Amino acid sequence: MQQSPHPIDNIVSVLEANDSKTLMGLFEGAHPADIADALESLTPEKRHLAWTHIPVEARGEVLAELNEGVFKTLTQELHSDELIPAIQQLDIDDIADLIPDLPESILADVLFAVDTETRNHLGEVLAYPEDSAGGLMNLDATVVRDNVTIDVLLRFLRLKDELPKQTGSIYLVNRHNRLTGVLAVERLLTSDLNELAANFIDESPVIFEAMDSEDEVAKSFADYDLTSAPVVNEKNELLGRITIDDVVDVIKEQAEHDIMAVAGLPNEADIFAPVATTTKNRTLWLGVNLITALLGSWVIGQFEGSIQQLVALAVLMPIVASMGGNAGTQTLTVVIRGMSMGTITSENAFNVLKKESLVGVFNGLLWAIVISIIAGLWYGSPALGSVIAAAMVANLIMGAIAGVCIPIFLDKVGVDPALAGGVALTTVTDVVGYFSVLGLATMLLL
Amino acid sequence: MQQSPHPIDNIVSVLEANDSKTLMGLFEGAHPADIADALESLTPEKRHLAWTHIPVEARGEVLAELNEGVFKTLTQELHSDELIPAIQQLDIDDIADLIPDLPESILADVLFAVDTETRNHLGEVLAYPEDSAGGLMNLDATVVRDNVTIDVLLRFLRLKDELPKQTGSIYLVNRHNRLTGVLAVERLLTSDLNELAANFIDESPVIFEAMDSEDEVAKSFADYDLTSAPVVNEKNELLGRITIDDVVDVIKEQAEHDIMAVAGLPNEADIFAPVATTTKNRTLWLGVNLITALLGSWVIGQFEGSIQQLVALAVLMPIVASMGGNAGTQTLTVVIRGMSMGTITSENAFNVLKKESLVGVFNGLLWAIVISIIAGLWYGSPALGSVIAAAMVANLIMGAIAGVCIPIFLDKVGVDPALAGGVALTTVTDVVGYFSVLGLATMLLL
Repeated sequence: MQQSPHPIDNIVSVLEANDSKTLMGLFEGAHPADIADALESLTPEKRHLAWTHIPVEARGEVLAELNEGVFKTLTQELHSDELIPAIQQLDIDDIADLIPDLPESILADVLFAVDTETRNHLGEVLAYPEDSAGGLMNLDATVVRDNVTIDVLLRFLRLKDELPKQTGSIYLVNRHNRLTGVLAVERLLTSDLNELAANFIDESPVIFEAMDSEDEVAKSFADYDLTSAPVVNEKNELLGRITIDDVVDVIKEQAEHDIMAVAGLPNEADIFAPVATTTKNRTLWLGVNLITALLGSWVIGQFEGSIQQLVALAVLMPIVASMGGNAGTQTLTVVIRGMSMGTITSENAFNVLKKESLVGVFNGLLWAIVISIIAGLWYGSPALGSVIAAAMVANLIMGAIAGVCIPIFLDKVGVDPALAGGVALTTVTDVVGYFSVLGLATMLLL
Repeated sequence: MQQSPHPIDNIVSVLEANDSKTLMGLFEGAHPADIADALESLTPEKRHLAWTHIPVEARGEVLAELNEGVFKTLTQELHSDELIPAIQQLDIDDIADLIPDLPESILADVLFAVDTETRNHLGEVLAYPEDSAGGLMNLDATVVRDNVTIDVLLRFLRLKDELPKQTGSIYLVNRHNRLTGVLAVERLLTSDLNELAANFIDESPVIFEAMDSEDEVAKSFADYDLTSAPVVNEKNELLGRITIDDVVDVIKEQAEHDIMAVAGLPNEADIFAPVATTTKNRTLWLGVNLITALLGSWVIGQFEGSIQQLVALAVLMPIVASMGGNAGTQTLTVVIRGMSMGTITSENAFNVLKKESLVGVFNGLLWAIVISIIAGLWYGSPALGSVIAAAMVANLIMGAIAGVCIPIFLDKVGVDPALAGGVALTTVTDVVGYFSVLGLATMLLL
């Protein structure tokens, strides 16, 4: 016995070679997640061709595993006759995930194609925001009345053909469908058969309300080592359950957001989306950056006379701006991270500011000495070296202060610090960096 | 019944007020993960005081939940008499995780304090690298011989007081302890009692070898929706099992690495570590940045005469450098992400390069037009505007090329692209940005 599923390695060259038989062999028995990865690594033109070689019974899961950008590009190419049978293979919660990303033209066909029960269930899940506990839940909870014995419960379960994957826990409800207990499956296997199931429920179960945010759900799953958890409405009626596999997806999306947003990029983009789409997606960010860069240039423009007198300033000022930006980005990264982990709060923000400023002072002094020696030797002017050194200390302290204050401020006004923090910070450190070098030089050297 | 565990909110002010009773109340019954979060939000001086108020029976789990940096700062403050009883409460795999971060002075005491069986088990786990499947595994797999019926298996399990949390699957072995099957607990509940357990095993189980990397483990758990998986040695003997809670930690660490490394920061740093420690941790990164900034300055220095003749160049050149850096960082981020997800491989890297370069061309042209108008109006010189525009296009294309090639190159030579990619890229875009503005201006305008 060996590890069975494994990544598909050479799909690009197999498609180049137009080798249908090998392609079908690659997909045959492959895990849908691996087929999805393979599709993502193809250019859009090749994806449709590859799609037709995927075993019919795997197509639904493949769609569910595709990243959002690739899903959108692919579904625009596919006819609804190809899409609908695939979507019909999926669980309610997976269909609900896909619906917001489906082309409008197909959406109605999909809702028309599923049976009434599925459509009603879809309604239950879609009633909650995508990023809430309700939007995340499955409807396959295993539920029993809370007045049964372990023996009866086991007999009841044995009547079923099979239990949902990752059942993990059985949910006990009273006759009003209110959740009264969560019973781990492993306890079922060792508990006394004649005792009431209710005697073996978790002492402090984690239960989500449908409107809890997915961030909260993800943090709780990670902190409390959960594998599944029930979702209730405000009346404590059991609605469904959340399983760890969907939470892992949330955790990965959050991580991707934190990485992509810093560069102004959307989550789950299609690497091979058409050039026009990608250009459009990225251009706004560059436009914002241009405005902030112009602000820095405007500051430099105020000192044109000084630069003409002492060209060395134009040579050295980018160093001060860049060092401030880098030191500030370090602080910013730590603070954004701490805020999203809950380690930095309004209670201790001032302690963070104090500490980061001190780090700025010490690193500022250290690199000020180094740069003053370099600049002093380069231009044979200790006075110039001293000016650059002073500007360096000032800008590193400014970077630290901005690194703490900017994300806290952005969060207060409801702007995502991961997205806007970096631009705001480098604007500050560029402006302060140029201004301190040129201003000090104008005052002291010219 | 309500959600029981919840974050601890106001620990900082309770500690400020020196209110021992309230503090003990906060910790009483709190989840160890929440206590750990609360400790992380305190300055090191307060942590020791807070520690003494944590219920004795929760201390082990709290240690296991602390981030690495805070664990190190705290354990240096604690006496081994305080630490050892806490560590003894933990499972083997948790102790194994902590051992590399323990102060040397305490390590021997810990190994001396645990019983012989635990020490032997620790040896089994510590025999494998921390970041391998073997280093990640627990030793609490539930194992039975593969020739039993479901009925016998259930009776066998019922003899135990309780099964490990998240048992999920039962592992079947032959008489040589070789793994022959993985049986999901939920199948146990619905299968025919008189049939052989071996008839209900997973058809394509995911099995890890002890030396598999934790990256591979994390990707498999996420892709194949696993909650637990067995670990075997090269003879297929069952060594232990990996559970999803530990994998979630790995996934979160990977994400943290990708975010922190970009700013040259270590994983799991203590936000309130002493100023000297933090200054030291960050200074090397700033030193590297200084060298790359000096490279840019050196390029500018080659054109001092040009700047003196046309000061506008000093004003406008940072814009071109900055836009190239930003566009390049977008490409770089997408490529690093694609490489770590396996979407970008050597097979399709050239397609990525082609596409990203085209995006660079189009965004370069767009913003070149804008900047040429601004610069032309600002200085009343269409010729200057054209030079800046040409430099902008060149630098955005360069940013795209560097954004694709740098991470691929770094990965080939074994350097972490997340750590070094950003510095390398901005060095290229600064140098090319300054050089193209100043070089073109010198050739065409002066």
